[in-house]
Amino acid sequence: MAFKVGLLGLGTVGTGTAEILLHPAQRHPLLQEIEIHRVGVRSLDKPRRVQFPAEMITTDLESIVTDPAVDIVVEVMGGLEPARSLMLTAIQHGKHVVTANKAAIARYGDEIFTAANAAGVYVLLEAAVAGGIPVIEPLKQSLCSNRIQALTGIVNGTTNYILSRMQTEGSDFDAVLADAQRLGYAESDPTADVDGLDAADKIAILASLAFGGRIKLPEVYCEGIRKISAADITYAERLGFVIKLLATAKRDSEELDSDLLQVRVHPTLVPKTHPLASVNGVYNAILIEGDPVGQVMFFGPGAGSGPTASAVVADILNIAAILKVGRAATDANGTPILDPLLSCSHQDYCPIAPIEALVTRFYVRFLAKDSAGVIGYLGTCFGKHEVSLESVVQIGMRDDLAEIVVITHDVREGNFRQALTEIQTFDAIVSIPSVLRVL
Amino acid sequence: MAFKVGLLGLGTVGTGTAEILLHPAQRHPLLQEIEIHRVGVRSLDKPRRVQFPAEMITTDLESIVTDPAVDIVVEVMGGLEPARSLMLTAIQHGKHVVTANKAAIARYGDEIFTAANAAGVYVLLEAAVAGGIPVIEPLKQSLCSNRIQALTGIVNGTTNYILSRMQTEGSDFDAVLADAQRLGYAESDPTADVDGLDAADKIAILASLAFGGRIKLPEVYCEGIRKISAADITYAERLGFVIKLLATAKRDSEELDSDLLQVRVHPTLVPKTHPLASVNGVYNAILIEGDPVGQVMFFGPGAGSGPTASAVVADILNIAAILKVGRAATDANGTPILDPLLSCSHQDYCPIAPIEALVTRFYVRFLAKDSAGVIGYLGTCFGKHEVSLESVVQIGMRDDLAEIVVITHDVREGNFRQALTEIQTFDAIVSIPSVLRVL
Repeated sequence: MAFKVGLLGLGTVGTGTAEILLHPAQRHPLLQEIEIHRVGVRSLDKPRRVQFPAEMITTDLESIVTDPAVDIVVEVMGGLEPARSLMLTAIQHGKHVVTANKAAIARYGDEIFTAANAAGVYVLLEAAVAGGIPVIEPLKQSLCSNRIQALTGIVNGTTNYILSRMQTEGSDFDAVLADAQRLGYAESDPTADVDGLDAADKIAILASLAFGGRIKLPEVYCEGIRKISAADITYAERLGFVIKLLATAKRDSEELDSDLLQVRVHPTLVPKTHPLASVNGVYNAILIEGDPVGQVMFFGPGAGSGPTASAVVADILNIAAILKVGRAATDANGTPILDPLLSCSHQDYCPIAPIEALVTRFYVRFLAKDSAGVIGYLGTCFGKHEVSLESVVQIGMRDDLAEIVVITHDVREGNFRQALTEIQTFDAIVSIPSVLRVL
Repeated sequence: MAFKVGLLGLGTVGTGTAEILLHPAQRHPLLQEIEIHRVGVRSLDKPRRVQFPAEMITTDLESIVTDPAVDIVVEVMGGLEPARSLMLTAIQHGKHVVTANKAAIARYGDEIFTAANAAGVYVLLEAAVAGGIPVIEPLKQSLCSNRIQALTGIVNGTTNYILSRMQTEGSDFDAVLADAQRLGYAESDPTADVDGLDAADKIAILASLAFGGRIKLPEVYCEGIRKISAADITYAERLGFVIKLLATAKRDSEELDSDLLQVRVHPTLVPKTHPLASVNGVYNAILIEGDPVGQVMFFGPGAGSGPTASAVVADILNIAAILKVGRAATDANGTPILDPLLSCSHQDYCPIAPIEALVTRFYVRFLAKDSAGVIGYLGTCFGKHEVSLESVVQIGMRDDLAEIVVITHDVREGNFRQALTEIQTFDAIVSIPSVLRVL
């Protein structure tokens, strides 16, 4: 008995996937029962690292997802359409789906999982978040006994690479981005990465799994790293922090009757002693806090052909393993019952707290005409808005202006923003070049 | 439909397990379908944190593993017997088993998995290695597409706690061990931990999963931390290393036709920049290197009631999830076919290379009468045995003797040992207080 795979896409991840499937030696013996049946590509003429007989390759992707011989459709083409439609058609034709497509799942997860549950098929997506790092399956299975409290991750390799290099080299964002583009670590249109959108897709998916509800992507607060300057990295370093783009999903309250979540992506000052502080370059890491497990962290390569393909093929094998066992139980409609840990059956949306309600520490940098008077003013104005300060430091002079860095204690973001609005009206304050949250 | 658990043991882990099962709020909804049916204890009179009705508790453990109503036997009593016999009886009675018992699995895994395969039941053991850190299931499932090359872990919390404190405080082994015993971080008989036996059990289990073969426990090379001195920790630090008790399982060769493994536990000098170097205190971490995933690391609490119970209950839920799906396929004898990723079906033993064949760097400390002549002699004698040296440093004087630390390049352990034997005969060498491997 062989399980037949229809592969949609033969780019970086598709090629990596094919390479594993074609070289099963010293891997799990179940691999020998997986067979690539058909491969769908955009163009037949492109030179490729992996060769298939001409009759296996087609540009007619629809014919693959409707092919009665195909058991598992592997969608590694990326993009929203036609990926979404092809996955839905595959599901309607009773095929299981493995996808690496975070963008499509974060936006159309609802529709896709509803269809999959109705059809009694699995949609697995380990590769969609953090590349080769096992995190989706551990969240679904190994940590399923926990009440997850928080999930904090570095889930975008491009921005972590840029921030790490800014940190090491003291360079500014634009210079490092340009070099990262030249080296292939950043796309020519870097928007999805540097503006935090890719990380937002991923944290929406992780939050959905960790907290057992659906997430409305537009409710995920998202702020990128374009405004991070070499100066901020230096000052953060002096104060004992590194700056990381963190994706966070956590319960807003410890109460058992509250299901309000915070789900957000923003650059964050991370204390140097924190486990995430030492995750550098293109590496990803996800820290999960649960009751009763405590803190566990998963670390590894967050992207790339090999790591992502490792996750894709693991999902293929997991589906094959389930099919080997056979599925005996059906629901009232005769549809096979899905493994409740592996399927996504939650129907409700998680309520998400507005960013104004967030309680956090802040780092804020001011440029001011006259530091003596200003520090007193800042203290008074913050105090009026219930923002208590941990430290106020005049770092030095920049362009004849006093450069003042303030770190607050935990404050309500709304109060802090009101204080800033008032402070901006003060004559001596020339500008507020950066406002960052502190972990 | 509820799944009925027979719980063997109500100590630290058993109590943690019961607490999760009795408090399902905000955890996976499948937990609500798990029911503790009976609890087996050694003594009925002990005061307990979790209360059960008298009719549920018994000292007759045999009656639990043969109880027709029990679906899943959870063995968290520890020890070799009667744990082994009870698991085997449970299996013979068609019950799935969840165990946290690394000692029993490392010794009797063969017998237990053979029986489980014949009976068509699962034996899951996430809690047996690294407490709450998901590592068994990720190895079986999320990384199953990889050819695992190496697995290196800090898998014993007690020794990591002792070494971390020796490092921070500059104290000697005996003093820290005594304090760790007082604080409950070390057992009154610390042998299994400090002599590396517990780590050896765990690496045998991990190696078996990672490399798909059985491991003969006596073939695992095992060296503990009793001989590590404050002096070695200081010198290692000066040279850029920390000392950790590492458990390692790796392929001895990159050749695809070789299945020879190294499986060993010993204190090791770890470069400070290595991800495992910053794993301190009772934390555990496992670094897995696979093709094509690269390096992934799992980090978290390696022991304790909550973390271990998290893993035990995850295994219970995983079995319940499989049973919900139903099992349709059977073999020729009518036995249900097991999920090939979750079961342990390998029959063959992995060949393990003798420690003499290991190629590694060494750290060795000599006390000598006369350093000038000695350094020349050491160089010559090591050279004769094909041991090339990375550095030779006279650290200082101790008890009127010159203290010399040598770090070698990669050498064959057998050659290195021969050189040491010869060096010991040299008059000026008074003693060789420590020999450690370097990562």
